[in-house]
Amino acid sequence: MTATIEDALAAALAAGAEVRGSTSPNPPVGAAILSADGEIVGVGGTQPAGGPHAEVMALRRAGERARGGTAVVTLEPCNHSGRTGPCAQALVDAAVDTVCYLHPDPNEQAAGGAEHLRAHGITVRRLDAQAPDLLPWLTATRSGRPHVTLKFAQTLDGHTAAPDGTSQWITGEAARRHVHEDRRRRDAIIVGTGTALADDPSLTARLADGALHDRQPRRVVIGTRDLAGSATNLHRLGFEQYPDIPGALEALWESGARDILVEGGATLASGMLEAGVVDAVQAYVAPTLLGGGAGVLARAVAGTLADAAVFDLADVTRLGGDVLLTLTRKD
Amino acid sequence: MTATIEDALAAALAAGAEVRGSTSPNPPVGAAILSADGEIVGVGGTQPAGGPHAEVMALRRAGERARGGTAVVTLEPCNHSGRTGPCAQALVDAAVDTVCYLHPDPNEQAAGGAEHLRAHGITVRRLDAQAPDLLPWLTATRSGRPHVTLKFAQTLDGHTAAPDGTSQWITGEAARRHVHEDRRRRDAIIVGTGTALADDPSLTARLADGALHDRQPRRVVIGTRDLAGSATNLHRLGFEQYPDIPGALEALWESGARDILVEGGATLASGMLEAGVVDAVQAYVAPTLLGGGAGVLARAVAGTLADAAVFDLADVTRLGGDVLLTLTRKD
Ligand SMILES: NC(=O)c1ccc[n+]([C@@H]2O[C@H](COP(=O)([O-])OP(=O)(O)OC[C@H]3O[C@@H](n4cnc5c(N)ncnc54)[C@H](OP(=O)(O)O)[C@@H]3O)[C@@H](O)[C@H]2O)c1
Ligand SMILES: NC(=O)c1ccc[n+]([C@@H]2O[C@H](COP(=O)([O-])OP(=O)(O)OC[C@H]3O[C@@H](n4cnc5c(N)ncnc54)[C@H](OP(=O)(O)O)[C@@H]3O)[C@@H](O)[C@H]2O)c1
Repeated sequence: MTATIEDALAAALAAGAEVRGSTSPNPPVGAAILSADGEIVGVGGTQPAGGPHAEVMALRRAGERARGGTAVVTLEPCNHSGRTGPCAQALVDAAVDTVCYLHPDPNEQAAGGAEHLRAHGITVRRLDAQAPDLLPWLTATRSGRPHVTLKFAQTLDGHTAAPDGTSQWITGEAARRHVHEDRRRRDAIIVGTGTALADDPSLTARLADGALHDRQPRRVVIGTRDLAGSATNLHRLGFEQYPDIPGALEALWESGARDILVEGGATLASGMLEAGVVDAVQAYVAPTLLGGGAGVLARAVAGTLADAAVFDLADVTRLGGDVLLTLTRKD
Repeated sequence: MTATIEDALAAALAAGAEVRGSTSPNPPVGAAILSADGEIVGVGGTQPAGGPHAEVMALRRAGERARGGTAVVTLEPCNHSGRTGPCAQALVDAAVDTVCYLHPDPNEQAAGGAEHLRAHGITVRRLDAQAPDLLPWLTATRSGRPHVTLKFAQTLDGHTAAPDGTSQWITGEAARRHVHEDRRRRDAIIVGTGTALADDPSLTARLADGALHDRQPRRVVIGTRDLAGSATNLHRLGFEQYPDIPGALEALWESGARDILVEGGATLASGMLEAGVVDAVQAYVAPTLLGGGAGVLARAVAGTLADAAVFDLADVTRLGGDVLLTLTRKD
């Protein structure tokens, strides 16, 4: 069976997904090379900052078999010599016939790759599809601050704890496992001092047996209260603290974070919405009703319905007995 | 192309769905006859109380072509001569070869149909599938009170109105159309006096252009407050009022209602949960956050998480930009 462009695209998307969480401030790009005789001869993802980009990884694996073939890349190949040479030139040198890419590069410094390829006689096509694992990076690059995802684990009626404070576990095992896999792909996990003091959280990405995932996001606390003498897990594992939201976002951006997950509590979540910086919401909703207890938000973020925070429902996924609703900023 | 048992089953399910809302206290059954040469020769649904049952409707349409064929019925054929003759005997008289049914009849008076058929040499098979439109009737018959569905139209964080009381519209057009189609299939719609006084609701099933659907549920208000001089729409259209939940459920059961929809408000919804009578929840969830305003429930129904009202997530359906989550009582 000969592989198709679609097969190569699937391989490129998977390679990009695989490296997500390890590439910032660079994008988690995936690339695949389809040889002239229809075989996928090289697949690669962007390496940690300073290392080779996805196209170079894929071309290395393809070797001579890239000649006359098609490269499928999730992002327009860069045309910029940073710590690594430009990928557009690497594709020219490898003498591929065609380059297909999904998203144009929003980075002015790096853009122009498609043009460079065309100028060297390579056919360039933009494919009509999205690379979900690139979207946070694309949004961050356009807005000049990290992409912010709010996470809730909640009952259907919007509570995160019962009136007596009990909250373990509202959602089931599949949802909790998903949270940990998601953490692994983020640059940072953020909580407010309230959560840090109340819960002594670890903010690590863990496997079902409690062992650590191979990649860990930065642990970040927002707020002015001194955590000395408490939050023992964070002190043991190491963490960063910033006094407020704008300061945190700026420092995280400057130090390379592009994709961050805000895990609570309700006060910080409300503040993020009020600051207008929420790009996505991931709500793990359990088929449970409480009618009281802490809510996902600490206070009203709108006085009237017309001012409510309205998102697009981007995805609905069942996880065991729960459902994950993913909301994204309205275009 | 020859029709299969699966085709006949689909026809029977559709016929049952079509009559739902018009058959109580009888079940909304559907039936289809597959002739010996593989053609669907008769389809029917149960007629309003006193009229023929589904099997008889389907057999009438099939006529002589039922002989040697297969009848597919969503409920075990009844063996009881009420206002109509027993369906099991009608199938014997029509000389079908095989009867396939989905749900056994939970009604002691009417059960025994399968046995009667077998005693007359007919092959009887129970199919491994469910008739969703029969489930409320089955639950009601087993519990001896109407099947109760709580309906919410809510933001992701569980609010039904903003702090200033605005609530039109939290969900979009597709969700609102679905509510009206759903009302058409219920025996009664119920609200508390609070909603009746505050909203002057019509509690009718309407088409997108405002015209009435062909079938209308009974309009029911629970509570002791006198609605005279207010609730002008309910007075114009006619309604029933009961002082409390047990009284309402008993009166509705006695007068033939089997499948009722509770549309609010939050006080009545909490009361229904506390009374332990909620069989299903239909939550139309908008991808919106408010952080304040009225909640779907008026008060905590559990003090600690272990006592929360936990349901099974039975169905997840996207409706335009919203999502309908259907919860059912845990087995
Ligand atoms: N079930 C769940 O999924 C879940 C998840 C997380 C947390 N929780 C629970 O939530 C509770 C804590 O919630 P919480 O609302 O009190 O705490 P929180 O949001 O974690 O922390 C509140 C603190 O964060 C800082 N902060 C928040 N918003 C800010 C803003 N806009 N600007 C500057 N600083 C800001 C402030 O710190 P300073 O006062 O120090 O300046 C504030 O006091 C805990 O009981 C925890 O168990 C539950
Ligand atoms: N957005 C939505 O989807 C939606 C839907 C419905 C309603 N609403 C809003 O909800 C508000 C009304 O809510 P609400 O909570 O005040 O009113 P409600 O639940 O409709 O009515 C409360 C009244 O119902 C009776 N009742 C409730 N539970 C009872 C129980 N367990 N036993 C006996 N009687 C019981 C009582 O009547 P008596 O006091 O007369 O005895 C009680 O005062 C309105 O503003 C309405 O607009 C919104």
